Amino acid sequence: MKRNVYADHAATTALSDTALNAMLPYFQEKFGNPSSLYGFGQAAKADLDAARAEVAACLGAKPDEIFFTSGGTEADNWALRGVAEARGGKGRHIITSTIEHHAILHTLRYLEKYEGFQVTYLGVDSEGFVNPADVKAAIRPDTILISIMSANNEIGTIEPVTEIGAIAREAGVLFHTDAVQAVGHIPVNVDRWNVDLLSLSGHKFHGPRGVGVLYVRKPLRLPPLIHGGGQEKGRRSGTENVAGAVGLAAALKEAAAHLDGEGARLTALRDRLMDGLLSAVPRCKITGPRENRLPGTASLVFECVEGESILLRLDAMGIQSSSGSACSSASLDPSHVLLGIGLPHEIAHGSVRLSLGRENTGEDVDYMLKVIPEVIAGLRAMSPIWED
Amino acid sequence: MKRNVYADHAATTALSDTALNAMLPYFQEKFGNPSSLYGFGQAAKADLDAARAEVAACLGAKPDEIFFTSGGTEADNWALRGVAEARGGKGRHIITSTIEHHAILHTLRYLEKYEGFQVTYLGVDSEGFVNPADVKAAIRPDTILISIMSANNEIGTIEPVTEIGAIAREAGVLFHTDAVQAVGHIPVNVDRWNVDLLSLSGHKFHGPRGVGVLYVRKPLRLPPLIHGGGQEKGRRSGTENVAGAVGLAAALKEAAAHLDGEGARLTALRDRLMDGLLSAVPRCKITGPRENRLPGTASLVFECVEGESILLRLDAMGIQSSSGSACSSASLDPSHVLLGIGLPHEIAHGSVRLSLGRENTGEDVDYMLKVIPEVIAGLRAMSPIWED
Ligand SMILES: Cc1ncc(COP(=O)(O)O)c(C=O)c1O
Ligand SMILES: Cc1ncc(COP(=O)(O)O)c(C=O)c1O
Repeated sequence: MKRNVYADHAATTALSDTALNAMLPYFQEKFGNPSSLYGFGQAAKADLDAARAEVAACLGAKPDEIFFTSGGTEADNWALRGVAEARGGKGRHIITSTIEHHAILHTLRYLEKYEGFQVTYLGVDSEGFVNPADVKAAIRPDTILISIMSANNEIGTIEPVTEIGAIAREAGVLFHTDAVQAVGHIPVNVDRWNVDLLSLSGHKFHGPRGVGVLYVRKPLRLPPLIHGGGQEKGRRSGTENVAGAVGLAAALKEAAAHLDGEGARLTALRDRLMDGLLSAVPRCKITGPRENRLPGTASLVFECVEGESILLRLDAMGIQSSSGSACSSASLDPSHVLLGIGLPHEIAHGSVRLSLGRENTGEDVDYMLKVIPEVIAGLRAMSPIWED
Repeated sequence: MKRNVYADHAATTALSDTALNAMLPYFQEKFGNPSSLYGFGQAAKADLDAARAEVAACLGAKPDEIFFTSGGTEADNWALRGVAEARGGKGRHIITSTIEHHAILHTLRYLEKYEGFQVTYLGVDSEGFVNPADVKAAIRPDTILISIMSANNEIGTIEPVTEIGAIAREAGVLFHTDAVQAVGHIPVNVDRWNVDLLSLSGHKFHGPRGVGVLYVRKPLRLPPLIHGGGQEKGRRSGTENVAGAVGLAAALKEAAAHLDGEGARLTALRDRLMDGLLSAVPRCKITGPRENRLPGTASLVFECVEGESILLRLDAMGIQSSSGSACSSASLDPSHVLLGIGLPHEIAHGSVRLSLGRENTGEDVDYMLKVIPEVIAGLRAMSPIWED
């Protein structure tokens, strides 16, 4: 029987009841402007700061190190351009990896093109891991920033952030991590990770869309990317989105409370899904690692089929999945991540990501294990290049 | 009898029922990512584009000239920095006024300090009007942009945008207007106004917080301020806030449908409020003009009293108002707008803005006309500098 299986949680998630209920009072009742002096505004400010403290607690940070943004993308842009502006006088070299999200890569291209920065793009191994020794070797006297993602959005690889953070710390170089895929899914602690800057986005853990956070370790003061009325202690202007911040905090707290149990549950489902596909479908393989992998993220490549075709067929069968990167999967370029782990173009084109989350069950996995092999076989039967 | 009178609509407004109801389905039910290829994502994309078309229709623009942002502040930043980047090779001179919002002024300071731009800050007359002849006279061969607000957030002055737009058009200089206070309150039409770029913000007209729009006239292609996954046709990256966009569009459509009636109603209430205060309170005067003034915005200065003290006393009496600028009124600096219209520091300190909106009634005005004169008299009675 046909089911509906949403398996694209790495792209976005539904708002949880907890988050929605936390937000609702702020739309019509407690709608005060936190920058206003009257009690109704100050009450909103208190609630905004309570949300800030909750987020801080979930990351092992201090409340005044948490700055609300419009999402993960803005947080990434701000981290990079802020450090470039603050430290550009000291040096103009930045280290990153080839498999970062485009919010990182395209911002760095901008800094290269317009601001005279030099960027070292570290390669990764066949499972997507950055080698901490490579990071160390790439550090130059003019290196001001290392930006390596916590976990990859396409293949789920969890990077060795703790080691990289220690190297950065020792070298006196700032360390930023794009933790958009990690926060709410694996334990994150800014001290254990030795990070100076960390980006996250609400809608990746059942919080609202259009709100994120940049963590900035004190005493670093990042110059603003968005100038104006001086909100967020002058660092990020714009009338505060209190509902969004409160919803993000509620969702994060909820995710943090179930991190271990849910992580184990999803890991088991994900492994059963990956192993089941590996044994049912010839000439397919997993992308990304087995260990140190995001709990919910299964990703595979199937030879001689197009990822887009698989995705559309799966959609017809009620399964929502993705091919290529999370945020611009409408593009038909082969994924830079899959090329980054060394896959040839023609294999990279046959990629599928199935990212499981809170609502997914064992029956969903059973259903996918029934449908996906049939879909692949059906597509291959029509393919001029496929031979059994 | 004590009432609660929210008279700070220029700072922010409550979400309307219409906007909230439009948004609700997008939190949990239709939560698809518009950039995803499957039907559930494409449905969200269709709804996002429908919101875009609605916004366009309200402004007399084309749908593909509408770009969703995180608010008015980001739209202002993007307009200025985008034009600076796109046209900086042609010239590095920008014209603005001294009474713009800080989202404009602080972004321009950044361009002056870090990007080698020169900015002409045009003075305004005692009612806050920019003189179009001054704009014309300030244009130089290297002028690439004129940015003049549609209406001032503190004193309600509606600027002669049509005339300024015509001058800009004739000179071949781009024209941006910060219409954050205007949209949803007075008729706005990008063609009649001859604007190339226009900023607006949802929460100023009973739409959601954290979402705004930048209108960009075709064929101008503004380089992105926020880089990443390529959403909004590559101009503004970040997973799309569909709920926010849909809520903004619904609120704008609702406001547009009642623009004339509500404008007339508020104008009458506002005038009764200002006239009543003028006659009941000695040594006070209106700031901003009588005509060409935002319907809901009353603003006054009271000699020998501090705006902050008035605000707090009014708060105790259930009236929420503001003193100084809308977005950072927690700051105690005298308002640059009031200094800009030529008020001396000590008078500018005694400013109050009462901005009326949809829920306000004649009884609210009666109540304010009773309470405010008492509050002023009470404060003056304690003032060492006050003499009857
Ligand atoms: C690793 C990573 N970084 C950044 C982002 C951008 O986040 P957002 O789209 O919420 O701005 C995403 C997802 O879209 C992501 O997966
Ligand atoms: C004239 C003007 N421009 C820009 C803004 C900034 O809008 P937002 O705070 O929604 O980003 C405001 C209000 O805060 C405003 O009144």
